Amino acid sequence: MKIGVPRESLAGETRVAITPDVVKKLTGKGFEILIEAGAGESAHFPDDEYSAVGGTLVSNAEALAAEIVVKLRKPSAKEVAAMADGAIYIGLVESCGEDESIKAMQAKGIRVLAMERIPRTSRAQSMDALSSQSNIAGYRAVIEAAAHYGRFLPLMMTSAGSAKPAKLVVLGAGVAGLQAIATARRLGADVHAYDVRPETKEQIESLGAKAIELDIGESGSGEGGYARELSDEAKAKQQQALADALAKAHVIISTAMIPCRPAPVLITEEVVKRMRAGSVIVDLAAASGGNCPLSEADQVVKKHDVIIVGHTNYPAMVPSDASAFYAGNLRNLLDIMVEQGEAGLQLKDLDEDEITEAMQLRADA
Amino acid sequence: MKIGVPRESLAGETRVAITPDVVKKLTGKGFEILIEAGAGESAHFPDDEYSAVGGTLVSNAEALAAEIVVKLRKPSAKEVAAMADGAIYIGLVESCGEDESIKAMQAKGIRVLAMERIPRTSRAQSMDALSSQSNIAGYRAVIEAAAHYGRFLPLMMTSAGSAKPAKLVVLGAGVAGLQAIATARRLGADVHAYDVRPETKEQIESLGAKAIELDIGESGSGEGGYARELSDEAKAKQQQALADALAKAHVIISTAMIPCRPAPVLITEEVVKRMRAGSVIVDLAAASGGNCPLSEADQVVKKHDVIIVGHTNYPAMVPSDASAFYAGNLRNLLDIMVEQGEAGLQLKDLDEDEITEAMQLRADA
Repeated sequence: MKIGVPRESLAGETRVAITPDVVKKLTGKGFEILIEAGAGESAHFPDDEYSAVGGTLVSNAEALAAEIVVKLRKPSAKEVAAMADGAIYIGLVESCGEDESIKAMQAKGIRVLAMERIPRTSRAQSMDALSSQSNIAGYRAVIEAAAHYGRFLPLMMTSAGSAKPAKLVVLGAGVAGLQAIATARRLGADVHAYDVRPETKEQIESLGAKAIELDIGESGSGEGGYARELSDEAKAKQQQALADALAKAHVIISTAMIPCRPAPVLITEEVVKRMRAGSVIVDLAAASGGNCPLSEADQVVKKHDVIIVGHTNYPAMVPSDASAFYAGNLRNLLDIMVEQGEAGLQLKDLDEDEITEAMQLRADA
Repeated sequence: MKIGVPRESLAGETRVAITPDVVKKLTGKGFEILIEAGAGESAHFPDDEYSAVGGTLVSNAEALAAEIVVKLRKPSAKEVAAMADGAIYIGLVESCGEDESIKAMQAKGIRVLAMERIPRTSRAQSMDALSSQSNIAGYRAVIEAAAHYGRFLPLMMTSAGSAKPAKLVVLGAGVAGLQAIATARRLGADVHAYDVRPETKEQIESLGAKAIELDIGESGSGEGGYARELSDEAKAKQQQALADALAKAHVIISTAMIPCRPAPVLITEEVVKRMRAGSVIVDLAAASGGNCPLSEADQVVKKHDVIIVGHTNYPAMVPSDASAFYAGNLRNLLDIMVEQGEAGLQLKDLDEDEITEAMQLRADA
């Protein structure tokens, strides 16, 4: 059974879906890995590391023509055209409704397994790419904040005076937010955190941060542990109640996102105006409108003397570990997709397993 | 007594010599502070914060014409031309022998007090700008390493696998090196450190790092706690003995500098070739040739799949705190330079105090 690993084609995407470590494990299991030459280069996995563990270096066309194609990002029209009829595609498809690439794949009878549809069950946890990548995003966001902030994050005592620890607020205590809290605490910042889901308070506090509690009249806890969108009334209350805490922050890392919906506005322009000159906002929701309306996707801007960082792909800024974690997720998924038959590896019925069943994008959906 | 604070003119210099906090203290003491409008902008100290505490916003020419001019970086010929005959200049003059700006100031009878000449005594510690700025450089260098490294620095355990902590080596355990060790330890890296001065072992270990001990036949301990240049034979031994430890490092932060001498080569091209793809070298000595000969001043380059960071002004990357610390150093220095006379503040004899005596650059020196 051949697995094709094309080089990611999206601008700025430095990750690769499979790393040499995972090639070794998959070839050991009986898969043949066709990796496009140079696919791992930007993630610092040279070609010779792949071939040393049994990977076969191939052209882009050969990688895309495999029975199973694994990628990170949604394939382009050109990539879909190069794929074989009836193949299996596994990747983050980032689809919310109408989507040309998905339609084109379905028209070719390609079965599309969306990594972001992996159920949040304990059995599927080791395949959960959204979590593994969000974890990296949370870490990297703090490094980015520290790099843009004109002061120390930790308390610093010197003979010429001392610098107080930065007051750092994390908005949203999902996987990215919790890792941001942990990393900022490591660096010695004074960390406060807010989440619309009241049940996150304990997690926030267990990481050594202070939970910001607001009374907004309703809970934002939604399905599967994710946040849901609030009523307009509750949104207004939330903005108001958050304003004072945020205006006093020196660094804000905001991670509040709602799948397939615009990000909630938590940091208004009024708040930005009140922040101290040189403060930093790292807005992880910049791709979906931003938790701060002043953030600009893929840009670092200065507004009202506040530095607003709008990068949209933090995992790609930590490409080696991000790729390694994603590849680990894929390996665990591939494990449940196949079984050893008499003639070698055989694909199981993808509709029989609740995980692969849930991951499939259906033509009629 | 008027103190002029011109805006720094050197490209990329974001710091300012005096911050609003220190303006407040100096005006309280009886100084008049003439600050160039916009001087604090890139360090995130807006003009109105200076005027709110008694600073007078002036033109560049007015700031330079004051009795005492304070700056960070060596003045340009144009700046010297604007200074008053017989004034006092205080700043980092970064002078090693022949120097046009210094000569031009001396020709005008300007007394030049070099901040880097402050003696390393306990009384002068609170004025020691080299230390305060090196401390910041050490912190910021680790943030820079984390930003360029494609993996986590800390141990990271996830359901998809775990990432080992990065092996990070700090070369040179002066002020910058010790702060780099402390910051890298905070971030959870596995930190090792080497210094040519054997007496640093204890400090390295007290910060939770492992000291790399080499037998190179001589000690590199020099005057005033600084390192001295080794013999050629000892240098060769050192390179050889370090090679294995460095080749295994994932991140190297090198801080080995000798005043007014080229930096010692500690990381040879051979070592760089042996490092894992995606490793990072942050070479703080890039301005003086580099501890790695492949580093390029003010550039981030990739050589043999290793990312080599050659920024030359880390304090300017943390401009608010770097300015605040420098301003604190200046304030403590100004404190010992004046006394309250009957007609207000009076300058003391600068040759009478060992600190201001040692700081002066003499025309005949």
